[in-house]
Amino acid sequence: MSQLKAPPRSFRAIDVIRQKRDGAELSDSEIGWLVNAYTRGDIPDYQVSAWLMAVVLRGMTRPETAALTDAMLHSGEVLDLSALPSKKVDKHSTGGVGDKTSLVLAPLAAAAGITVPMISGRGLGHTGGTLDKLEAIPGFNVNLSVAEFRHLLQTCGCAMIGQTAEIAPADRKLYALRDVTGTVESPHLICASIMSKKLAEGIDGLVLDVKTGSGAFMKNQKDAEFLAELMVETGERMGKQVVALITEMDQPLGNMIGNSLEVIEAVDVLRGSGPEDLRELCLELAGWMLHLGGASRTVAEGKQQSAHVISSGKALQKFRQMVELQGGDSRAIDDVRRLPRARQTSEVSAANSGYLAAIECERIGTACVILGGGRERKEDSVDPAVGIVLHKKVGDRVATGEPLATIHYNEESRAERARQLLLQSCRIGDVAPWQRPLIHKIIRRSGEQN
Amino acid sequence: MSQLKAPPRSFRAIDVIRQKRDGAELSDSEIGWLVNAYTRGDIPDYQVSAWLMAVVLRGMTRPETAALTDAMLHSGEVLDLSALPSKKVDKHSTGGVGDKTSLVLAPLAAAAGITVPMISGRGLGHTGGTLDKLEAIPGFNVNLSVAEFRHLLQTCGCAMIGQTAEIAPADRKLYALRDVTGTVESPHLICASIMSKKLAEGIDGLVLDVKTGSGAFMKNQKDAEFLAELMVETGERMGKQVVALITEMDQPLGNMIGNSLEVIEAVDVLRGSGPEDLRELCLELAGWMLHLGGASRTVAEGKQQSAHVISSGKALQKFRQMVELQGGDSRAIDDVRRLPRARQTSEVSAANSGYLAAIECERIGTACVILGGGRERKEDSVDPAVGIVLHKKVGDRVATGEPLATIHYNEESRAERARQLLLQSCRIGDVAPWQRPLIHKIIRRSGEQN
Repeated sequence: MSQLKAPPRSFRAIDVIRQKRDGAELSDSEIGWLVNAYTRGDIPDYQVSAWLMAVVLRGMTRPETAALTDAMLHSGEVLDLSALPSKKVDKHSTGGVGDKTSLVLAPLAAAAGITVPMISGRGLGHTGGTLDKLEAIPGFNVNLSVAEFRHLLQTCGCAMIGQTAEIAPADRKLYALRDVTGTVESPHLICASIMSKKLAEGIDGLVLDVKTGSGAFMKNQKDAEFLAELMVETGERMGKQVVALITEMDQPLGNMIGNSLEVIEAVDVLRGSGPEDLRELCLELAGWMLHLGGASRTVAEGKQQSAHVISSGKALQKFRQMVELQGGDSRAIDDVRRLPRARQTSEVSAANSGYLAAIECERIGTACVILGGGRERKEDSVDPAVGIVLHKKVGDRVATGEPLATIHYNEESRAERARQLLLQSCRIGDVAPWQRPLIHKIIRRSGEQN
Repeated sequence: MSQLKAPPRSFRAIDVIRQKRDGAELSDSEIGWLVNAYTRGDIPDYQVSAWLMAVVLRGMTRPETAALTDAMLHSGEVLDLSALPSKKVDKHSTGGVGDKTSLVLAPLAAAAGITVPMISGRGLGHTGGTLDKLEAIPGFNVNLSVAEFRHLLQTCGCAMIGQTAEIAPADRKLYALRDVTGTVESPHLICASIMSKKLAEGIDGLVLDVKTGSGAFMKNQKDAEFLAELMVETGERMGKQVVALITEMDQPLGNMIGNSLEVIEAVDVLRGSGPEDLRELCLELAGWMLHLGGASRTVAEGKQQSAHVISSGKALQKFRQMVELQGGDSRAIDDVRRLPRARQTSEVSAANSGYLAAIECERIGTACVILGGGRERKEDSVDPAVGIVLHKKVGDRVATGEPLATIHYNEESRAERARQLLLQSCRIGDVAPWQRPLIHKIIRRSGEQN
C-alpha cells in the first residue's frame, strides 16, 4: 500500500507546465502533486498532454525521473512480499521479436530459490507479449487478483500475471494519454512507466533486458544505453538492486516467432535444448537474477546454478507446477500437440545462395502480426497458433532453394502477404557478415559499465 | 464569408503532432485540417494542446505560420468591405500601459479619407484594452453585429467594436486552450492569432505597433522584432500591405492611465494638445495608415495631413460622430465631467531630488489594475473612473516633495497598495538618463528595415 505521507502542497498546473516548457527542474513535490491530481481527475487531460510534450522536448533530470517514477508507483498498491523469506527478483524486457525469455526465467529462477513476481504485458505492434504467449497454453489464466498472485508466489516461487487495476493507476491513465498525443517517445517517460510498474511488484532486484537493433524499439544502441542508465539509476535511487543488459535484437531471438511456437521453444530451453542464442541469453539473465537475489556470489556462479537447475529437470518441473496452479493444461508442456496448431504450413525458400547477411527484424515481427499472431491495435484479438519458424540465422550459409523459414498459418491470403514480407526481410550476400554479439553491454549504476 | 474550397484531405491528429514534435514542417493542408477539425470539435483538446506545446518548443516556418493564420482566418466570417470605395486600413498594438492611440487613430484616419474597421480587445493583466476605454464613455456600445458594423463604416468611415462570434472562431477556441496550457508564449501562435482576427476585418493594409520595454509583453527588442517580422511577412504572404513599428514601452505612453482618464487624453490629442510622446506616436502611426491606404504619397505627407485634420477640428468631429453612432454621449467629449470620475485623488510625491531615471512600466499598469481599472482575470469587471496621472516622465528633473503622480481612486485600501507600487516603480537618480527613442525601428517585408 501507498506510504502514508503528509498531504502534498497544492500547485497550479499552468505553473508546472510553464516551468517544464522553459526547461526548469521540477521539485519532487510539484511532480508528485501533478501525478496525484491527474490520477484523481483534478487536472484535465489537455493540461497534462501539454506537460507531457514539454517533457518529451525538454527532457527531465535524474531526480525528476525518480520523482515521477515514485509518484506513479505510489498512485496504487505496492505489493508487500516481505513475508516471503527469499529475495524477490524480476526481469523486464523492452520488447523484441521471438523474445520468450520470461517463460524460461520465471520457473528457472524460482527453481533456483528466488521468488519471481512477474507482471507482464501484451504484444503490440511488431513485438510479442508474454501474456499472449502464456495464453497459448490451454486454460492458463493470467488474470489473477493480487491475493491469488501472492498465494501462488508463496506456493510456487513464481507466478505470471497481467497488470491489475490496483497497480500504478497513474501509469495506466498517463499511458493512454501518451498513446494518443505523440508523447510515448521519451526515455524519461518510458523509464517511469516501466519502473513504476516493476517496483510495485515489491521486488528487491530487477534485471533489465534492453534490446537494441532493427527489431527493438530502440534501434540505436546509444538510445538503448541512455534508457538503460536512466532505469538503473532510477531503481537504485529507490533502493533496489538493478542491472541492465543491452542485448541483441537485430534478428529474432531463437528460431520461433508466434505464441504457441514460442511456448514450444521456451520449453525446449527448460528441457536443456533449444537454440543457442536463446539458451545463452536465458542463462545470462538468470545468472544476474540469482546474483542480485543473493542466491549466488557471482554472476558466473548464477549461470552455472541455472544450467544445473535445467539439467536436473527442476526448472521444467517448476514450469509445470506454475502452469497447473494458474489453471493451465500442463500436459501441453510434454505433448506440444495439445497446444494450438496452425492448419497449414508453407516454406519460404532462398532465391540464391550465399550467406544470410541480414534480417530486417521488425518486418519479421510484422509478418507474424499479418498472420494474426500479434496486434496492430490494442483491441485486436490474437491467433495463438500462427507464426514463423526460422531455419537460418544471420551468418548461416544458404543454398539456392533451401528453406529459410516455415510459415504456420490459418488463412491463405495472410500467408501470402507474410511470405512477401519474409522474402523482403532476408538479405543473402556473398560474404559472411560480421557477427554482432548477443550481449552488447552491461550497465550497473549510472555511468558504470562492464 | 469563407471561400469555397475543395473538401480538405483527412489526416490523423497523432501524425501531425508527431511531425511537429520531431521538428518537421507541416503542409498547408495538414495545418488547415487540424484547425478546422479542432474548431468543429472533431479533435479533442488534449491532442491540440500537445501539438501547441510542440509548436512553442519547435517553432514554425514562415509558410507554416501563414497557413495557420489562413486556416484560423477562414474558420469564420471574413468581412467583404469591397463595396466601400476607400481603402480599409487598421492599426493593431501588441499592448502596453497608457496606450490610447486607437481612440485617436480611428477617427483621425477616417477624417483623412481612410476606412478604419477596428475590432479591438479588452484589457488583461497590466495592459489596458480599447473596449474598456470606449465603454468609459456613457452609452458607448461596442457589441455591434457585423451588419451594424458595416453600416457604420459606410456612414462614418470608422467604427470600433469587440470580437464577434462570427470572426475567427478557431482563434477563440485555440486561445482559450493556450491560456490554460502554457502555450501562449510563441511568436508564431501570437502572430496567427493577431493576424487572423485583423485580416478578417477585410482590410487592405495594416499598421502594427509592436511595443518593447518593461511595460510590453515583449520586454526584449529582439523578441519584438522577431514577432513584427513574422506578422509583416504573414500579412504580405496573404496579399496585404503591412508595416510594423517597434515602439517604446519602457514607460507609460502619455501621462494618463485608466479608462476614463485615457479617453480624456485621447480627446486632448484629437483637439491638438496632449502629451508630446502620445501625439507624436499617433501622427507617425496615422502617417503610415494614410500612406498604406493610398491617401498620401509618403509617410511624411501622411503625417502632415494628419496634423492638418487635427488642427482643422475634423478629427475630433469624426470622433463625436462615431461616439454618437455607437450610442455614446458625445457631450462627454467636450465636457469631461460627464465621464466617470473617481471620488478621491491623492498625490504621490518624490522622496528625494534628482532626475526621474526609470519607471518600471509594468508595475504602473499593475497599480492601475489594483485600483480596479483593469483585470487580473477575464471575468473581472472594471471601474472606468480610477487611474493614475503621471506628472513626471523619464528624464524630468524632480525636487524632493514634488508630486510624481496623482492617484484617482474609489477605495482607500486599494489606493494605498497602488501608492506603494508607484513609489517602488519610480527610480530617481543623480544623472539624466539616456532618452530612449519613441520609435525604435520600422519593419516592412521580412528582413527589410529602415
